[in-house]
Order: sequence, then structure tokens, then C-alpha cells
Amino acid sequence: MADKKLVEAITSMDEDFAQWYTDVVKKAELIDYTSVKGCMVIKPAGYAIWELIQKQLDDRFKATGVENVYLPMFIPESLLQKEKDHVEGFAPEVAWVTHGGLTPLQERLCVRPTSETLFCDFYKNDIHSYRDLPKVYNQWCSVVRWEKETRPFLRSREFLWQEGHTAHATMEEAEERTIQMLNLYADFCEQVLAMPVIKGRKTEKEKFAGAESTYTIEALMHDGKALQSGTSHNFGDGFAKAFGIQFTDKDNTLKYVYQTSWGMTTRLIGAIIMVHGDNSGLVLPPRVAPTQIVIIPIQQKKEGVLETAYALKDRLSNFRVKVDDSDKSPGWKFSEQEMRGIPIRVEIGPKDIEAGKCVICRRDTREKTEVALDELEVTAGALLEQIQTDMLERARAHRDSHTYVAENMDQLEEILNSKPGFVKAMWCGDQACEDIIKEKYAATSRCMPFEQERLSDTCVCCGKPAKKMVYWGRAY
Amino acid sequence: MADKKLVEAITSMDEDFAQWYTDVVKKAELIDYTSVKGCMVIKPAGYAIWELIQKQLDDRFKATGVENVYLPMFIPESLLQKEKDHVEGFAPEVAWVTHGGLTPLQERLCVRPTSETLFCDFYKNDIHSYRDLPKVYNQWCSVVRWEKETRPFLRSREFLWQEGHTAHATMEEAEERTIQMLNLYADFCEQVLAMPVIKGRKTEKEKFAGAESTYTIEALMHDGKALQSGTSHNFGDGFAKAFGIQFTDKDNTLKYVYQTSWGMTTRLIGAIIMVHGDNSGLVLPPRVAPTQIVIIPIQQKKEGVLETAYALKDRLSNFRVKVDDSDKSPGWKFSEQEMRGIPIRVEIGPKDIEAGKCVICRRDTREKTEVALDELEVTAGALLEQIQTDMLERARAHRDSHTYVAENMDQLEEILNSKPGFVKAMWCGDQACEDIIKEKYAATSRCMPFEQERLSDTCVCCGKPAKKMVYWGRAY
Repeated sequence: MADKKLVEAITSMDEDFAQWYTDVVKKAELIDYTSVKGCMVIKPAGYAIWELIQKQLDDRFKATGVENVYLPMFIPESLLQKEKDHVEGFAPEVAWVTHGGLTPLQERLCVRPTSETLFCDFYKNDIHSYRDLPKVYNQWCSVVRWEKETRPFLRSREFLWQEGHTAHATMEEAEERTIQMLNLYADFCEQVLAMPVIKGRKTEKEKFAGAESTYTIEALMHDGKALQSGTSHNFGDGFAKAFGIQFTDKDNTLKYVYQTSWGMTTRLIGAIIMVHGDNSGLVLPPRVAPTQIVIIPIQQKKEGVLETAYALKDRLSNFRVKVDDSDKSPGWKFSEQEMRGIPIRVEIGPKDIEAGKCVICRRDTREKTEVALDELEVTAGALLEQIQTDMLERARAHRDSHTYVAENMDQLEEILNSKPGFVKAMWCGDQACEDIIKEKYAATSRCMPFEQERLSDTCVCCGKPAKKMVYWGRAY
Repeated sequence: MADKKLVEAITSMDEDFAQWYTDVVKKAELIDYTSVKGCMVIKPAGYAIWELIQKQLDDRFKATGVENVYLPMFIPESLLQKEKDHVEGFAPEVAWVTHGGLTPLQERLCVRPTSETLFCDFYKNDIHSYRDLPKVYNQWCSVVRWEKETRPFLRSREFLWQEGHTAHATMEEAEERTIQMLNLYADFCEQVLAMPVIKGRKTEKEKFAGAESTYTIEALMHDGKALQSGTSHNFGDGFAKAFGIQFTDKDNTLKYVYQTSWGMTTRLIGAIIMVHGDNSGLVLPPRVAPTQIVIIPIQQKKEGVLETAYALKDRLSNFRVKVDDSDKSPGWKFSEQEMRGIPIRVEIGPKDIEAGKCVICRRDTREKTEVALDELEVTAGALLEQIQTDMLERARAHRDSHTYVAENMDQLEEILNSKPGFVKAMWCGDQACEDIIKEKYAATSRCMPFEQERLSDTCVCCGKPAKKMVYWGRAY
């Protein structure tokens, strides 16, 4: 009965997806709410996922020449205001520090919502010659945006992220880095998070405040809503002109640098939950699972059972493995393994030991197999790989089967109102059409994908000649 | 001449130690100043040291059962005020957020100067039963203290650190964890940073705001000043009572938890500079050197030189190694290697290649040796170990030869005014004597060391019966 209670505590995702999500983040002990409105505690089970994301992303960054730095968390108001579009985009949602100790500050400081202005202020003094370029810097930190509606991982007033900021001698090189990082993000999502993404460019309406162009990766959640999962911006020389970041080039003339920025956040943990989770809780891709294998002893008080469990743990030391030797019932432990999304559970009891085997059960499909004890390392390793691959393929199949085509507004309306998912449709390039679609259906242009198709010749909204195919959707 | 200029740019440490320090942090490109008063940019060369500190410290933490979490950076004013001593200690030096976007906040939030109050607020809801204990959590983050006088790494308005916060069922267990972490810190400083430390307990006057007892590790810098390098606090049940953190124990009664906290910061980078640096710049212990070996090709345009340099790099792949193939002169590169504190430099030119050897030069002693090329891996590996050991021993010898004994105020005055270093002296336990010594000589009690000696029977200040031997010194 106790076992059942644990599982019953999760709302069914078909009944109420939002409540299911909230139940999972709480019951899988990823977060806790705090006295600080809109901010959360990331608990050990949640933070360990972030550490695995950080480590693997950081290794990939460094392989492309990225160097890590740390800049202040405060931005003087005058600095924030230097780039016109940027300040308009961010000023309404920053937290302002007005006092240091008991003394009012001469100039207000905002807590960084993003650090373009600080990097520009730094680069202005750090870059003099073409020899100083490129600068390919990144920082891991927290940022603050004073959101009104918040949800754990998806939208909170403070969140953790990495923000890369680069400076280049030419526009071509900046564009190359922008696309390189977008591709790195997409590969990371597919290979590590088992989450397929659409790569594309944002429309003018949806681009980052101050950017010349913004590229995005968009993923589809289980409920058919889109999640922007990473962005990469090319600033051209706009910030450089606003901040006066110049260098002496090889031809001895003074030129402005070209800049980029790119970021991914703890929001990715929300994406993992909503792409892979099910009604029993979290389902973690093995590469970001803090525990990949949990060994659950059956009748653990019987002689030899715990010893065998620990011996198996030692043999599985290539993986992140734990023995659950608590005094809870096996059924309760099974439910916990499912709730926490641990990819593989190994069951080992007296009869198994006698027969020289154990039972392994994969979290994603719940499939159970008997495995000879002396084959466990090899089988478990192969199974983790298989789970990782299968999870990506299932997510891709879900995404593809929830991607629709609309040729006119009637079709668009019918799809958006009855079939949650991505809608591919042609667009004339006019922001007015985006505004209409947003107002009528609460759907936004997610991106103009790199892989363009010619679905029809006319804009889904106004019927004028189409310029681009766009992915539309309701988004988090 | 250009080579000379680079080196001459550092002030001699004997002439002006403070200026020498500032020159080194700037010239070794560890930091840059910013438009945000009292805050710095940690540049790649500085941040890479921090990453090595983080990785090695975090591994040691996890080996003792520590789990990482992340709590909000903001503390509501009412929460900060719950523990009386704590708020008195910190309120005068916090930054206050008063506006979110365009709206004034109903309650001011301070940017965390430390997170005891947030952890208490979290534990209050997270701890119910003895089964939930102990909690051994840590976070890596930045904190803000509105200092008036700032110096890079040593004292800045924002700095990076880790803060561990634990909760236990008994006072004994809390005390055990407090001491365990202090010992871990001391081992880390000695083994990784090659920096010997004195372990001891702070006096009542010097303990942390809200703590029952504070333990510290104190290191001696090259100029004879002390640097508090890490602290570990036992809070008893003081915070638990202020915040109402109770659990049901095995005997079914409700009890308050016992708590600890412990932290180390980016200040450790300042310690590395001031313990090991010399008039040519930084000297990094191999275990925290982002580059351990730099290969400098001589006459690099001659056939085969660069190829050999890269081949050596590949063979040294067990270490953090770089080839400096820039178009600067070898002399300039040597100066840069010294400035940046890279432990080993390998010089390889056409004549060396012909003779099947290269020259290796260690940074700490500047000793040069010829090494047969096919012995380079083994020799370099052994030399890095040797440098690490020698640096610790040299630092220990310096510390020991700058530790003095005073039996009365005349001796104390004479030592403090003419021989910078630690002064060991007996103390009666009365804060009035600490106040007098601080006022007269600007020296503070650094700690009551675990290794007590009986230097005399009377207090160095008042002549009354002595209770403890204390390390005194001027400190950063």
C-alpha cells in the first residue's frame, strides 16, 4: 500500500501535464520551493544532473578553444544603457541594488540578466591588436530576470547558465562561431540528453535584444509544446560601436570587432523531464543520470545477499552505481528507482545468487531480463548505450509524429486547437502575420529552420508570396 | 631589451610588497579591474587555477559524502534577521535589492554574504526525522560583501567560494564534521597548494557571527603577514532554535538539529601568489598549474624544430602542456613562462635535436638540466612531483623561520615592529588583552593552535595566569 501511495502521488500527465511536471520535480527531489518568491533550491538529485551537463558541455567547449572567465554579477545602470535595443529588452526585468550596507549607492547596479555589457566593457580595455583576437570566453554563473510567472527550471527569477561571449576580427568569423556553437548545442542535446532539436534562425520579432541575428535550437516536449533550449547570437559590430571596442588590424587601420554570445541554462533539466518522463516519474538518459544503476537486494537480511550486492557494485565501478540497502521494502525501492529515473535496476536475492544470475530492469521500457552474474558488466554497459539510443529515437519519433503542416489559417487553427505539436507553415516575412498568429492562437514562430522545405508558395496567414518555411508552436 | 621590459614591469617584492602583488596579478593576466567598483574580472589564467582548485576540493568533499546543491542568491530581510548575532555581523556589509524591474519590492532582499539563513529556511522544511540526517550539503557560488577597501582575490565586493552547510542529530557529530572539514582544508592546502597551515580555534572575539566555535587554518605569506585561508564553524543548535529546525529522534522525541558550515574562497589564489611568488612573477605549484609544462622551440623556423616540439607535446600528454609557437623571441617567451609561473619549461632547438636531448628548466629554482629526449616523460613527471614537494618544504621553512616567541609586551612589540611573521605567545583568555594588542600593534589573535605549547605561565599582555598559547600576527 505504501508503494502505491508513492506512485499515486504523481498526477497523470494526460490528466494535467502542468501538475504532473510539478509533482515530478518535487517527488524526484530535484527542487524545493523557498521563501524567496520565484527562486528555488536545486536539491542534490537535481544539481547532480546539472553537474553532468556542465562537465560534458564544458569539455566540448574547451575542445573548440573556449576559455572560462568570471565577470562581476553587477552592472552599473549607465553601462546597461549603452546599447539601445539591449537596455530596452532587459531593463523592465532586472533586479536593482540601491544600497551597499547602510549607504545609498551613487549609481544603481542591476544584477546581471546577461553579461554582454560587462564583456564589452572588459573587451574595450583588453583588445588592442589583431593579435588579441579572437577572444572566445565563457562563464558559468547565475543570472536574474524578474519574471512574474515562474516554474521550476523553466522560468525562475534566478537561474544557472553558461554564457559564451566572443570577439572576432571579421563578420565571417563571428558568424562561423555563432553557427559552430549552435551545432555544438544541437549535438549535445541529441547525444547527451537524447533530445532531438530543430536548428534554425529566429525572426526579427523573436531575436535577442541587440543581436543582428539569433539562432536557436527548439525541442518538442511530451505535451506538444515547444521549448527553446539554447540560443546563439551574432551581434555584428553593433555592441562594438556602442562600447568603442576597436583593434589595429594587420593593415594598420583601426577596426571594430564582431561579437557573438551563446547560452544554455538549467532549463535543460526541465526539458529532460518533459521529453522523457512518464506517469511513474523521471526517466533519465544514462549520460546525465547521477546514478545509472541501482542494485536492490531482495530479502537482504538473508546471508550473502548484501555481500553479493556490494560485490556487484564493485564490479560495476565503471558506471555510477549505488546499492539501496535501506530498510524500505523492495517494492518501495522499485518505485523510488522509477520516480528518480535511474536507467537500470538490478534485483538480486537468495534464489538469484543460487542460480548465478540476477534480474535487470530498464527504466525506459520497464523490460526485465535475467542476466548471468558473470556477464553483468558487459550486459549493463551495452544496455546503458541501448537505452541512450532508444530514448533519442523515441523522442524523435514523438517529435516527428507531432509535427504538422498547415497551408492556410483554417488548417493552422484546426491543428493548434486539436493537435499539440510543431506546425510547419510558409511565411511572407512580414511581422504583422506573426502578430496575428500570436494574438489569435497564442502560437509563436519558433524558428526558420536551416532545413527549409517549399510547402506552398504563399504565406499561411496573408496569402502573399512566401519567403521562408517557419516552425510555429505554443512554447514554454 | 623588450624581454627586460616585461620583467622590469614588476616592482621588487622587497621594495613594495603590495605593489609587487598588484603587478603580478595584472602581468600574469590573472585579473582585470572593472567599471564595477571593488569587483574584478577573473581572466582565463586566473580562472583556470580556480577550476583546478574546485575540481580537487570537490573530489575530496564528495569522498566524505558531501552533496552539492544550489540555493537562491537573495535573502529576504526578515530571514536575515532571525539569528541575532548573525544579522549584526553581516547587515552592515550587504548589498540591498529594492526594485524588481520598475516595481519597488514589498520586502528588501540582500545579496547573500553567506547562506546560513537560507540553508536553515530550507532545512526547516526538509528535515523531519532522524532518517533525514545528517544533511551534508555544499554549494559553489559567488557572494557579496560591501567592503570599503578591496584588493584582487584577497578582499573584493564579490568573490567565488564554496560554502558547506550540514545538519546533524547530535552535537558530537557536528563537532566531528567541523574538525573533519578543517583537516580536509589543511591537507588540501599542503598537498595541492604546497602551502603549510596552522590549524586552530578562533577566540570568542574573532569567531564567526552566530557560531559556537570557529576553527581556522592560517598561512604565512612571504611578507610575514598572516592569511586566514579557510574556516569551519560549529553552530551548536543556535540557528536551529532561531529557525525552528526540529526532527523526531529514534526515541520519538522532538529535538533540535546541530549545524556546521565551512568555506574556502578565491582568496586561495592570492595565497598562492604571496606564498610562492618571486620577483619574476608567479610560481605555481604543479597541481594547480593550468599549464604544467611549456615547450619553447628555439630557432623555430629551422626545419624539424616545430615538428619535434609538437611531437614532444604529444608524448607529454599525461600533463597539461603547451607549445609556445608564437612569433615572439625565445627570451620573451622565457620571461612569460616565469611571469605566469609555469612549473617547467622545455627548450628545444636544432642543436638539441641533433644531440637527441633538450633543456628543461624548473620555475621555482631556475635550475637547468639537459635531458635525453627519450627520457623526457619520466623526467618531467618526476620533476613535477619534486617541485610540488620542494615548494611545500620551502614554504614551511619560511614559515618556521618567521615564527617567533614573545613572553611579554616588550618582546611582542620588538618582534612585530622588526620581524614580520607569526608570534607565539601565551594568553589569559581575556578579550581585553586581545583588544590592547590589536590597538597597540595592529596585530590580532590568529588562532589557538591545536598543537599547544607551554611557553610560559603568564599572559603576554596582562601577566595573569595563561590559559592558551595563541598565534598572533598582522593579517590580510
